[in-house]
Amino acid sequence: MLQQVNVGGSNGYPIFLNASLEGLGAYLEEKFGVKAHYLLITNNRVANLYAERVLKGLKEFRTDLITVPDSEEEKSLTTIARLTEEAVKFRTDRDSVVLALGGGVIGDLAGFFATIYYRGIRYIQIPTTLLAQVDSSIGGKVAVNHACGKNLLGAFSPPQAVWTDFSTLRTLPWSEIQNGLAETVKHAMVADPELFDFIESHADAIRNHDQDLLSRLAARSLAVKVKIVSEDEKEHGIRILLNLGHSFGHALETADSYKGISHGQGVSIGLAAAANLARDRGLLTEKELARIISLLDKLKLPRNIPPCAAKDLLSLMAADKKNKAGNKILVLPVGIGKSMVVTDCTDQEIMQAWEKVFK
Amino acid sequence: MLQQVNVGGSNGYPIFLNASLEGLGAYLEEKFGVKAHYLLITNNRVANLYAERVLKGLKEFRTDLITVPDSEEEKSLTTIARLTEEAVKFRTDRDSVVLALGGGVIGDLAGFFATIYYRGIRYIQIPTTLLAQVDSSIGGKVAVNHACGKNLLGAFSPPQAVWTDFSTLRTLPWSEIQNGLAETVKHAMVADPELFDFIESHADAIRNHDQDLLSRLAARSLAVKVKIVSEDEKEHGIRILLNLGHSFGHALETADSYKGISHGQGVSIGLAAAANLARDRGLLTEKELARIISLLDKLKLPRNIPPCAAKDLLSLMAADKKNKAGNKILVLPVGIGKSMVVTDCTDQEIMQAWEKVFK
Repeated sequence: MLQQVNVGGSNGYPIFLNASLEGLGAYLEEKFGVKAHYLLITNNRVANLYAERVLKGLKEFRTDLITVPDSEEEKSLTTIARLTEEAVKFRTDRDSVVLALGGGVIGDLAGFFATIYYRGIRYIQIPTTLLAQVDSSIGGKVAVNHACGKNLLGAFSPPQAVWTDFSTLRTLPWSEIQNGLAETVKHAMVADPELFDFIESHADAIRNHDQDLLSRLAARSLAVKVKIVSEDEKEHGIRILLNLGHSFGHALETADSYKGISHGQGVSIGLAAAANLARDRGLLTEKELARIISLLDKLKLPRNIPPCAAKDLLSLMAADKKNKAGNKILVLPVGIGKSMVVTDCTDQEIMQAWEKVFK
Repeated sequence: MLQQVNVGGSNGYPIFLNASLEGLGAYLEEKFGVKAHYLLITNNRVANLYAERVLKGLKEFRTDLITVPDSEEEKSLTTIARLTEEAVKFRTDRDSVVLALGGGVIGDLAGFFATIYYRGIRYIQIPTTLLAQVDSSIGGKVAVNHACGKNLLGAFSPPQAVWTDFSTLRTLPWSEIQNGLAETVKHAMVADPELFDFIESHADAIRNHDQDLLSRLAARSLAVKVKIVSEDEKEHGIRILLNLGHSFGHALETADSYKGISHGQGVSIGLAAAANLARDRGLLTEKELARIISLLDKLKLPRNIPPCAAKDLLSLMAADKKNKAGNKILVLPVGIGKSMVVTDCTDQEIMQAWEKVFK
């Protein structure tokens, strides 16, 4: 049954859960009337799977489809320029609405495109991966990458709505499920001990891709993010807690030695590194650390990497957007289901945490 | 003496007039403290003239300078990518502040860069041309161009402050003064009959580059813009009136047949075209039209162009961002010092207006 969760803040918007791709048209008609123009942006793979289902509900409207290749490489200014060209061809104007159908890459790319095209037009997130459903479609962060860093250029730009159809999880390969699970474990570690228990007790079913369970897990997990971003729209405060595992993870994603590591894998290993650092600081007991590591294992999420020079990883962390005035800002778990910001970690401590996750 | 005008709205900010470039540092120290990092972005020509004066006041702070060539071509995604690379090298972070020193191109480019770098950092406009001082530095509109259109990608993104030193007008070539004068006449025609009188009675002094008069003119002219954008931050309402002359002007700026026409020249000819259309519709008397044309002549602003196919210009107007659902939206003068939005102009009427400004 259709369920609605509202993101609060000065630019609040609804997230619809158990929504159907075919039903989007009816919602749009009610919200924007019959005359609006829709620009559906997706990638080739998702287009093959789902574009038809969305377009079916949009038959009555002027709708144009733009597809990009299925690749993180597309999160670039080059693709923004190409989208602009096609959007102009389709006479996309200030009253048009962008529909971002896909995972995190499409959400970030199409969302950022909508944010700057004509100085900003409206857009709707239609997340089709677990990662996008529990995390990236919520909170209005959109961006493209730059050779010097991931998500370097972007905006805080809330969508008009998020339209989530969990049935898209059925076609999702395990590697993609993994990306979402890493964020789900993160949400549990950041702020929801009961979610942590839930994942622990259903790890087998989750790993077996149990559709019903994945939906329940997603709904529970995204609620953590909704709560946090509602309180802190623009990342001036507690929202930084959602960065748990990410300072480490981003370094892995950008390191030459770990080419091909996915965002979820990076986050998962990052959670293990952060947990080790937290244990060293007395924020986690040995037992709590073991519980976290064991959960990652149960979910078949990676928690270590082949050794390299910890110093190199440390210096990649220096490029983190959250750093301030040269200080590395880290989020660390405090027991299970709580977390805190730490600004006084020494390089030595961080390198030791890296070494703990070396195989 | 330093004068302050405040832009209202939910993201209000101060405009400082008669400010000195050397005095900026003291203001920044008061506003952002001593620890902030500043990224001064300007072009080669302005850097030669004024960077030293600004940097003198910033001696105590960590400040880095980035210069781009002096060209409208630099308002591009390509330059945004290059600025990003340099900003990262200079360890520009979320607490850094961009200083946009220059005319409209630099303000738009550096302002847009600040708006999307790290999902948005703070910036200050330091306009050095008449156009930037009376118009483009105010109102938070920033953008880059795209092959398919001017200012196609951008944002509404208010600066932290505008720091205006009128002494920079001294070095300004006449062609640049012209760009600003066209907007000043526009402001008078849109909403300030007394400003129109003022320009009329001081046209000679203005043309002779009288420094004191230009400052008074600029202060008066920018007040019109401040009033309008304070009421309508994101161009949902009356702000569109500032588009007077621009639908025509933009077409000229993009037309192959008129390569090299400046923004101000386009606007000036656009004002003449709009005035002719207004006369045809009975919104202006013959006498009022003559008064407008005569003022343009007195200021040595162009008001006609070599003939071409009016149809081609008409079709270029179809790409205007302000158009809605295929209707051309025009702003027309109503008497002297008033204006209105007109949505029912026929293509025939618009082509006739074009023909009236053919030499």
